[in-house]
Amino acid sequence: MDLHDLTRTLNIKNDARIVLVVADGLGGLAPEPGGKTELETAATPNLDALAGRGVCGLLDPVLRGITPGSGPGHLGLFGYDPLEYVIGRGALEAAGVDFELGPDDVAIRGNFCTVDDAGNITDRRAGRIPTEKSTKTVEKLRRISVPGVELFVEPVREHRFVAVFRGEGLEDAVDDTDPQQTGVPPMDPVARDAASHRTAEAARAFITQARRILANDRPANMLTLRGFAKRPPLPSMQEVYGLNPAAIAVYPMYRGLARLVGMNVPPAPGNLAEEVDTLKEHWGAFDFFFLHFKYTDSTGEDGNFDAKVKRVEELDAEIPRIVALKPDVLIVTGDHSTPALLRSHSWHPVPVLLTSATCRIDAATRFGESQCVCGGLGRFEAKYLLPLALAHAGRLQKFGA
Amino acid sequence: MDLHDLTRTLNIKNDARIVLVVADGLGGLAPEPGGKTELETAATPNLDALAGRGVCGLLDPVLRGITPGSGPGHLGLFGYDPLEYVIGRGALEAAGVDFELGPDDVAIRGNFCTVDDAGNITDRRAGRIPTEKSTKTVEKLRRISVPGVELFVEPVREHRFVAVFRGEGLEDAVDDTDPQQTGVPPMDPVARDAASHRTAEAARAFITQARRILANDRPANMLTLRGFAKRPPLPSMQEVYGLNPAAIAVYPMYRGLARLVGMNVPPAPGNLAEEVDTLKEHWGAFDFFFLHFKYTDSTGEDGNFDAKVKRVEELDAEIPRIVALKPDVLIVTGDHSTPALLRSHSWHPVPVLLTSATCRIDAATRFGESQCVCGGLGRFEAKYLLPLALAHAGRLQKFGA
Repeated sequence: MDLHDLTRTLNIKNDARIVLVVADGLGGLAPEPGGKTELETAATPNLDALAGRGVCGLLDPVLRGITPGSGPGHLGLFGYDPLEYVIGRGALEAAGVDFELGPDDVAIRGNFCTVDDAGNITDRRAGRIPTEKSTKTVEKLRRISVPGVELFVEPVREHRFVAVFRGEGLEDAVDDTDPQQTGVPPMDPVARDAASHRTAEAARAFITQARRILANDRPANMLTLRGFAKRPPLPSMQEVYGLNPAAIAVYPMYRGLARLVGMNVPPAPGNLAEEVDTLKEHWGAFDFFFLHFKYTDSTGEDGNFDAKVKRVEELDAEIPRIVALKPDVLIVTGDHSTPALLRSHSWHPVPVLLTSATCRIDAATRFGESQCVCGGLGRFEAKYLLPLALAHAGRLQKFGA
Repeated sequence: MDLHDLTRTLNIKNDARIVLVVADGLGGLAPEPGGKTELETAATPNLDALAGRGVCGLLDPVLRGITPGSGPGHLGLFGYDPLEYVIGRGALEAAGVDFELGPDDVAIRGNFCTVDDAGNITDRRAGRIPTEKSTKTVEKLRRISVPGVELFVEPVREHRFVAVFRGEGLEDAVDDTDPQQTGVPPMDPVARDAASHRTAEAARAFITQARRILANDRPANMLTLRGFAKRPPLPSMQEVYGLNPAAIAVYPMYRGLARLVGMNVPPAPGNLAEEVDTLKEHWGAFDFFFLHFKYTDSTGEDGNFDAKVKRVEELDAEIPRIVALKPDVLIVTGDHSTPALLRSHSWHPVPVLLTSATCRIDAATRFGESQCVCGGLGRFEAKYLLPLALAHAGRLQKFGA
């Protein structure tokens, strides 16, 4: 019996509402020994008040020492084991441009590249051509036609695009065509199993036509295909948790991830205050809300400690409006740490706080990494957070007699 | 996807060096309520300084409540699930005498015993004959010859020895011949499956000849065989972690265990200071060093609290020379607890400290069981320590996009 077997059997419906606020990359590091992290440096009276009347802890997004990408980081928070459900790169890229993958779709990440007259790659990223230019190049690719396959091509950013092949009998065990080096031609898309043969054939036809269409373009006169992936067979949050969930997120990637687990995704708002407006607006329609705040991560990736501190304060300022909605369970956490010191995602555990009428209040009075170490929630893998939220919402029955 | 699937995919090489100092049986118990453990009683200014600028925690070698032997205790620290990789007693005993098992070898633990004229066992340990005497008896056993099997017999200590059968088609599902009681004869080595039939046959031939050779010896006039075991199929640390590891250990058992996971094992030094000399000497040649200190365990097993305290202080005194090498990640821990109060290994969690440029420094300022309870590493199964070390060494890439 695994976690989902339990929650499938035990979940019940009621009127309780759960809000999961995810400040992307929330966890941090002090810039010098004995110093404070970004979260600890920020003035966060509202989060601290929640910590005071709630319970705190630390989450490992995947396992100790493992640095998650956004996919595994969010899957864990949504209550899915990120080691059981692996989202292929193509599928994640499709999610990232708000493309809703169907069950017969194979999504592929494409890169424009530059080849010389002999067909050897001279630049794997076509000089990172500007997005406006690659958008036009993508439009040209829409002329391509492959018999028996419905084709979608969408621009992503700079030299990156997504291709989706839709059709029966398409599987995704196909090798990348990117040789990961220059001076050689792109490789052939080779199927690793018989079931993926048709996909490889379609990819070959796509590449052949693309080569002709792009021949006179510079620098994007060729392309490579990577990360062939179908939509992962994720059961919905409705089915495993009995929730009617909604995602409030600005960035397409997170909206796409939410859609993969069955969340409803209202139109994208613009900034955090507008996200809270959207939350308020849909308050009556759903019982679970994932609210995503991106900028704690992007400032961390920029290595800008002070900017991340400010973004935490921006989040803190919106907390009262969320609290005013009187969620039965309110959780604030991150999908991983992004210490400004490291300018990247990291493996460090992520602070989490939970308030509800049934929480066993701990000694924490300040929401930050140090106090979370000794918080009442302890330290645990992120995939257990959602069942815990359900419990505090009175939505999980007793297991066994 | 499991831990090793992750680390196999995500590991990268760099110049970072990791040092894992294992003080055997480090964890302890206070001799009276409210008192201090051995580690807390010891004066450890150097370990305390590390705790002050590092992060502490507690390790469960296997699972809560499970007291590990040296095999499982070390496998966990080396990043292997001790419940997945079980080292049979024969294989461990071979490791303990520095015998390098090949893939076709079956290792067996032998005990000399005393039998009466009717062949019934009167003493299962042959009066624990002195090692010098049993060494000579072992030499006699080397006369034995079994067709198709290459035979090795090595003394261990007192009445114990190791036999190794080398040859194709030898499997290890063979029952012990030790009846675990006196007044009855040794049992027959019975194969539990068809593949182990040849091994059982060879054991029978070995026993028949041994009985004749030992007939006139007293008290060791017979033997029993236990724990038939091949070398466990352990993937190497090179393969699963991308490390080039070395073991610095005095005792053969730990050298043997390290060899089983692919570690290089330089010649055995004599005492701890010489172990640190060896570390220094090989500093350029490897990127992971397991340094084993035995005497915190043996003093604990002797029930000598004060002697264990002194051994901890001996370890502490060598810490500055290790720190001077500037390891990128330095870890100090134990493979299990050996409280002098219990005179044996125990299930109590083991203090661990880690220092690196990327650690989130916690409040601990003293390396000891009490402060480790609220350490920033939390409490976790030992098998996750090595992935964590790799992360801090910058040797693990992000999982998922």
